[in-house]
Amino acid sequence: MEKRVYNFSAGPAVLPLPAMEEAQRDLLALPGAGASILEISHRSKTFQAIIDGAEQNLRDLLAIPDDYHVLFLQGGAQMQFAMVPINFLRNSGKSADYLLTGSWGKKAIKEAKTQGDVRVVWDGDAVELRRIPRPDELDLDPNAAYVHITSNETIQGVQFPAEPDVGDVPLVCDSSSDFLCRPVPIERYGILYACAQKNAGPAGVTVVIIRNDLVERVPGDLPSMLSYKTLAGGKSLLNTPPCFAVYMVKLVTDWLLNEIGGLEAMHQRNREKADSLYQVVDQSDGFYRGHAEPACRSIMNVTFRLPDETLEAQFLKEAESRGLAALKGHRSVGGCRASIYNAMPPEGVRALRDFMLEFHEKHAK
Amino acid sequence: MEKRVYNFSAGPAVLPLPAMEEAQRDLLALPGAGASILEISHRSKTFQAIIDGAEQNLRDLLAIPDDYHVLFLQGGAQMQFAMVPINFLRNSGKSADYLLTGSWGKKAIKEAKTQGDVRVVWDGDAVELRRIPRPDELDLDPNAAYVHITSNETIQGVQFPAEPDVGDVPLVCDSSSDFLCRPVPIERYGILYACAQKNAGPAGVTVVIIRNDLVERVPGDLPSMLSYKTLAGGKSLLNTPPCFAVYMVKLVTDWLLNEIGGLEAMHQRNREKADSLYQVVDQSDGFYRGHAEPACRSIMNVTFRLPDETLEAQFLKEAESRGLAALKGHRSVGGCRASIYNAMPPEGVRALRDFMLEFHEKHAK
Repeated sequence: MEKRVYNFSAGPAVLPLPAMEEAQRDLLALPGAGASILEISHRSKTFQAIIDGAEQNLRDLLAIPDDYHVLFLQGGAQMQFAMVPINFLRNSGKSADYLLTGSWGKKAIKEAKTQGDVRVVWDGDAVELRRIPRPDELDLDPNAAYVHITSNETIQGVQFPAEPDVGDVPLVCDSSSDFLCRPVPIERYGILYACAQKNAGPAGVTVVIIRNDLVERVPGDLPSMLSYKTLAGGKSLLNTPPCFAVYMVKLVTDWLLNEIGGLEAMHQRNREKADSLYQVVDQSDGFYRGHAEPACRSIMNVTFRLPDETLEAQFLKEAESRGLAALKGHRSVGGCRASIYNAMPPEGVRALRDFMLEFHEKHAK
Repeated sequence: MEKRVYNFSAGPAVLPLPAMEEAQRDLLALPGAGASILEISHRSKTFQAIIDGAEQNLRDLLAIPDDYHVLFLQGGAQMQFAMVPINFLRNSGKSADYLLTGSWGKKAIKEAKTQGDVRVVWDGDAVELRRIPRPDELDLDPNAAYVHITSNETIQGVQFPAEPDVGDVPLVCDSSSDFLCRPVPIERYGILYACAQKNAGPAGVTVVIIRNDLVERVPGDLPSMLSYKTLAGGKSLLNTPPCFAVYMVKLVTDWLLNEIGGLEAMHQRNREKADSLYQVVDQSDGFYRGHAEPACRSIMNVTFRLPDETLEAQFLKEAESRGLAALKGHRSVGGCRASIYNAMPPEGVRALRDFMLEFHEKHAK
């Protein structure tokens, strides 16, 4: 087999090897089906068992209450940036509150503005997108259609340690890059959505967890594919779902449940991985400079700079030559970013840590 | 390996074995990438080469003129049912003409009506959805925003042998179930779209071929993911595309180009496969009754009934036991349907033909 590197890509990102090995083994014919997961009808019993299994795994992992739907949709988080306001802001007579803590929140706001009135109740640009707001900095509208947050900002490496208090207003969360990284109290959310390609599977499927009373409130005049009501009514099978991506979500969540042991265990492993890198940053006498403030550092995306761009380029090049791939920061912020999602093994993080220590030692003044 | 059956599913459907074998071989690590196609960044050079290759293959196969964009989108044909009128009907001050020749056209009309004024210029229900209209039966509006057709109706097995004459009005075509089955004069279309899961790849990606002057006409106030203009501007990489599905389109079109030899050759093979089954139907003294009128019979979906439902059930059961799978007609029309897309090998059609002859002989009165 072709050698595999440690892939620190921000997404699509590393997947658990056992899940991919099972997919590879069965790619030409699923056991008992006589055809590939790429070929079988989405109305077949075989596929129904797969999508039901994926949903049940998510319900088990996140303890999703019964009054929430779990949908497998297409279009990524960006389609949700549009669908949330199309369903709940347009013609609502209300405005929506958005918290801007990074680049993805900014995009969500831009899309929402095409549908109605948006209040940016926290603009993180004032603090260089280094932290989330303190509770006393938020002036939320108790009559807002909803409050939208981005639980983890992939590009800045800023993560909400816990949900902000939004009272009775539905909390809508883009959890694309920290979905399934830790337990989450779903009952505090109206909608929690996540594209799969960080922690849940390959690109091509988006998980939407939505409370039933919100689904009931969807206007009746929307196109079927843009209405949470018809999509929930169709149980993700209104039309052909992205079958292979759903199948991979099933295999990845099997791994989370059976090999990792659930989200508490996953969270602890993620915490340890992140801490070991932040420790190198904090003990480097300023050689490595973290972007996010310590209290809201992401355990998924560790963002940092080096003393200058020449050293950064050298760091990335040497890392690459050691099989530590895709550490370049997003083009909009520069620097370095180590995305250490669920499936990044501790050995990969140790290899990066050792390299960071060695590189610092070699280049410290 | 698990035994493979002949899979006559209407979609997702049989894929070329060489394409799946290559995907299987490289599933844990693409050559030179050190990571899976499921894991690599959509901004990587490796993926850019894949999506460029898929686009070039389609351009080569269909001789797509330079003033057309080729987009890889998500949401299936049903999302296009909404996007076409969102982009070109709503606020246009015009109505759109729709030809209803089967179940999918009916759905397209339902979705379009959420966005504006729809004229159903041909309602095939009057002829039990057995044929397309004759030119003299069409009264098209020369000022329509567009004319929409479904080139092949999967459920009824009715196919346009050629494009209807729509004058200067843009022709929009849902070609989901006959895309790439034959050469097509793209220059006669404003938009031709197709979900992949019949002839082009697995479920999860939709190909949209759209003329540039239409893209230029898209209103500026749409959400990015619903605007052909922003999607075309982003060259299918506005956000993370369904990378694996695009990769499979690349491999399937490689097979079409290199092993089949292009769409003329594919068309001839498809024609022969379909003819061999229709011949059995026509020479069965009414034992098998085809649904579509001969002049517009689909070369992709062969729909037929048996003398009664008991025989139909028996036919399906015996077929299944011989490894001829998924021959049941759609629940809305009943009977039998043999979907014989590009990747159904001639041997599979011969096996079905032999079984049909044998079953007829056994049960002829």
